[in-house]
Amino acid sequence: MSKGCLSAEEWLAEKRVLAGIMTGTSLDAIDVAVVEFFQENENQHRFKIIASDSYPYEFSVKQDILDLIHKETTIRKVTQMHYKLARVYAQSVKKLMQDNNIDFDSLDAIGIHGQTVWHEPGVETDTRMTFQIGAISSLAQLLNTTVVGNFREADTALGGQGAPLIPIFDYEFLGTETDDIIALNIGGISNITLLPAGSSMDNIKAFDVGPGNVLIDAAMRVLYNKAFDDNGDVAAKGEIIPGLLEFLQQNEFIYAEPPKSTGREMFGLPLIHKILNDFAQQNLARDIIHTLSYFTAWCIVHNIKLFGNPKSDIIVSGGGSHNKFILSVIQNELPDSRIRISDEIGIPADTKEAISFAYLAYRTLGGLPGNIPSVTGASHPTILGLVARI
Amino acid sequence: MSKGCLSAEEWLAEKRVLAGIMTGTSLDAIDVAVVEFFQENENQHRFKIIASDSYPYEFSVKQDILDLIHKETTIRKVTQMHYKLARVYAQSVKKLMQDNNIDFDSLDAIGIHGQTVWHEPGVETDTRMTFQIGAISSLAQLLNTTVVGNFREADTALGGQGAPLIPIFDYEFLGTETDDIIALNIGGISNITLLPAGSSMDNIKAFDVGPGNVLIDAAMRVLYNKAFDDNGDVAAKGEIIPGLLEFLQQNEFIYAEPPKSTGREMFGLPLIHKILNDFAQQNLARDIIHTLSYFTAWCIVHNIKLFGNPKSDIIVSGGGSHNKFILSVIQNELPDSRIRISDEIGIPADTKEAISFAYLAYRTLGGLPGNIPSVTGASHPTILGLVARI
Repeated sequence: MSKGCLSAEEWLAEKRVLAGIMTGTSLDAIDVAVVEFFQENENQHRFKIIASDSYPYEFSVKQDILDLIHKETTIRKVTQMHYKLARVYAQSVKKLMQDNNIDFDSLDAIGIHGQTVWHEPGVETDTRMTFQIGAISSLAQLLNTTVVGNFREADTALGGQGAPLIPIFDYEFLGTETDDIIALNIGGISNITLLPAGSSMDNIKAFDVGPGNVLIDAAMRVLYNKAFDDNGDVAAKGEIIPGLLEFLQQNEFIYAEPPKSTGREMFGLPLIHKILNDFAQQNLARDIIHTLSYFTAWCIVHNIKLFGNPKSDIIVSGGGSHNKFILSVIQNELPDSRIRISDEIGIPADTKEAISFAYLAYRTLGGLPGNIPSVTGASHPTILGLVARI
Repeated sequence: MSKGCLSAEEWLAEKRVLAGIMTGTSLDAIDVAVVEFFQENENQHRFKIIASDSYPYEFSVKQDILDLIHKETTIRKVTQMHYKLARVYAQSVKKLMQDNNIDFDSLDAIGIHGQTVWHEPGVETDTRMTFQIGAISSLAQLLNTTVVGNFREADTALGGQGAPLIPIFDYEFLGTETDDIIALNIGGISNITLLPAGSSMDNIKAFDVGPGNVLIDAAMRVLYNKAFDDNGDVAAKGEIIPGLLEFLQQNEFIYAEPPKSTGREMFGLPLIHKILNDFAQQNLARDIIHTLSYFTAWCIVHNIKLFGNPKSDIIVSGGGSHNKFILSVIQNELPDSRIRISDEIGIPADTKEAISFAYLAYRTLGGLPGNIPSVTGASHPTILGLVARI
């Protein structure tokens, strides 16, 4: 009998090794982690990271995904990419396991985020939609293990935004009895989880706060022909363009009450094209990067001021945690906070989301809900995802 | 703990009530069945049909699906239809259960085929693709029960054609020790399952044999502005157009060795447009319907002669089982066969596929494989489908 056919109770009774795969809206990397999870005492979860790494998307795959999202397409192309991604994911997991001499037989399951090609949280429950591709059953067969994916949909069906989903990981593993913690992830989009000292699951908040790397990366590509602003070095040399900052700060999303989530629909190419069209002629390139980076940090700071405690411990993850300029703006604007990159507490900043999706799969197979209604807006907690057994 | 979190053993230990939903390539109906399954002795499955019915697709939904398949589209439209179908499926199940006073709490799970929007069995394993939409997690939440869907993909990942999948139902419930049985389903596409007397699962064959209603229905729409040829009455009044029959009989698919599967890619609108363009001017409409219907029956007959026993018991299901002209051609060409509509042995002809997908879901939740490698060409049997628990 395959491991995927265990009852939830049997699943939770022993240590389980799961791989997690994260591919975000920024399309910058395929993050993979292999993690061991287990229950200590009753319902107290623990984890041990066995290996994690990030692999670049092949240029042609990345381009095809962008075309799928932004251009007219055909159902055949959608289907092709759905299957292609299963093979790309399989290769990435294989590489991580081979490079780290991890035995394939030790793997109990895989959790995949999938590639979001549409996210429209909608107003009415029946206009909410989110769509992640990456063929789950194919991946299960390619790697001969149980795969869980498509975690967001169930939450949207319950009136939630389908995002963010990392907060359950933050709640279980970062929250403390004594300190106010803020988990900040700067991926394509930035999001925060507010974990007041000793809070129960019902009263934690977590939400997208604005762009992460998405605007900076898009502008770097056009202005510098580079994928991203390494260390934030370009931003550090520039100055604010007041008109541009003012224009960006008009975005109502930043001030909206949580729960809220966003994506490329709001902070995508059309916005960058408008910005470059209006500001690139009469300004220095580095000033545009500086202003976009400042705005990115400012969205984080402003949301913490509006909805959190500015004196919190801030634990930063995601590709943007390497951007020293962004972190310095946050520290300047929130002088009483303590900012640490998550590596300092044992969680690789680049693969925290992959680790979290491994954990979400662990919960699903254990019959445990993965969404937090106070975070997503869903009517109640539910088991997330689709499970392919082998 | 939800029922979907039972172990495979626990699932099989008691009677289970499942709904099955079938929507085929012909888009003519949403077939729904509610069926009770149980194990008698060791591994001997039994079923009892509680209710079944067919509901028409709303015209606009049908049109949007056809546009999705045949025209340029956007990822947003694909996502919209994916979610829309979950709501359509939920309504259909609700209607059947309300009309028959079936208690919702009695439902253990649902198996859905989903709407195929692409099926390209490919040559190499990594060019095989099949794509069914209808959002599984949403349906699970809408009806508050476990849902299994996306049954075909796992088989294609093992080098199979992902079709046909009904043969496991035929093998379990129609095969006998004493008679050669052929299960014939005339849906959009026609397929047969060959069940020689006393055969083991390893040596049964099942495959698509050619068009079912797809060509006839398309021609009826254009020539008569009707959805289908009721009873085969139009076909019965026409005569063969030799040139058209000759042209159709040139299709190499008909003669190909099984395993083989086909769909709208081969027998779709482009073919009908070519036929009407070449033959509608100088021929009577009823003669075109007659020839297409004769060809449809001839594909079935020819494949039985090539690969089966012409003296079999033929059990017919699918919408085409109401087409008396088609059945009379088969009886004439195979005079030693005994032809019965499946209703005569207790299986409603219009909903047999829905019943079979309820059974496939029953097997998946019981940790049992659903594909038959001798039928699909897959390298080995596997558990099929994606499971959304609640």
